[in-house]
Amino acid sequence: MNDATWSLHPRLAADTVPVGDFALSRLLLSNDANYPWTILVPRRAGIREIHDLSEADQQQLLRESMLLSRALMTAFSPTKLNIAALGNMVPQLHVHHIARYENDPAWPAPVWGRVPAIDYEGAARQARISALRELLGNALNPAH
Amino acid sequence: MNDATWSLHPRLAADTVPVGDFALSRLLLSNDANYPWTILVPRRAGIREIHDLSEADQQQLLRESMLLSRALMTAFSPTKLNIAALGNMVPQLHVHHIARYENDPAWPAPVWGRVPAIDYEGAARQARISALRELLGNALNPAH
Repeated sequence: MNDATWSLHPRLAADTVPVGDFALSRLLLSNDANYPWTILVPRRAGIREIHDLSEADQQQLLRESMLLSRALMTAFSPTKLNIAALGNMVPQLHVHHIARYENDPAWPAPVWGRVPAIDYEGAARQARISALRELLGNALNPAH
Repeated sequence: MNDATWSLHPRLAADTVPVGDFALSRLLLSNDANYPWTILVPRRAGIREIHDLSEADQQQLLRESMLLSRALMTAFSPTKLNIAALGNMVPQLHVHHIARYENDPAWPAPVWGRVPAIDYEGAARQARISALRELLGNALNPAH
């Protein structure tokens, strides 16, 4: 399923750390510690919209989104998931999956543009990554 | 595929007009004329997250989302689609599909909470509805 011409958009690379690779998508964790904020990026070059993916890739993206959604619910027990493919600024197709809480700094608004990002401290980032990797198990391979 | 216990959430009913029913989802047009802004609502009672749907319903929602996405591209030629399942305020699962332009009033930010909604005037709302109905054809039945 690899597309050798794909590479992660520099803006996404700068704002996240890799968690691993599903069969289709790279899983990223946002550097913003305000929320457990993950992003799925299908490893397909030149794709901007979900409907630009092949039907098989669309179905695989759905499967990976559901696996990730359940892992976020189990790992972080949020009030609500926010799932969004926006891409007005970064043209490479990417799908946000954000665990939201009634006491998070943007609630109930969407997270974009609300409060400044804050850095992870200590072991907090690795704890979130480890929780996701453990739950996703064999569905996730090392990103490379 | 009908779920007799489902009814549209009053907040969604107040903020939109119905365009029609796909096999699974009701298609709504937002009353905010700032954007061609549509919403898919699976007609399933008690569902808040996409992963709460059965696998068959998830796949049907994906098919309807892709049909709607292509219709929005053809009807309105936007710069970008924004697709999002948020639901922090309205707990009934609903998926926004918004046609975005570089000269729309919120660009490049997401639309939520940016500028006040404006009413449709004259025949503009019906023109958007008719364009979608014509493109979606037999996939869409009258909502009731």
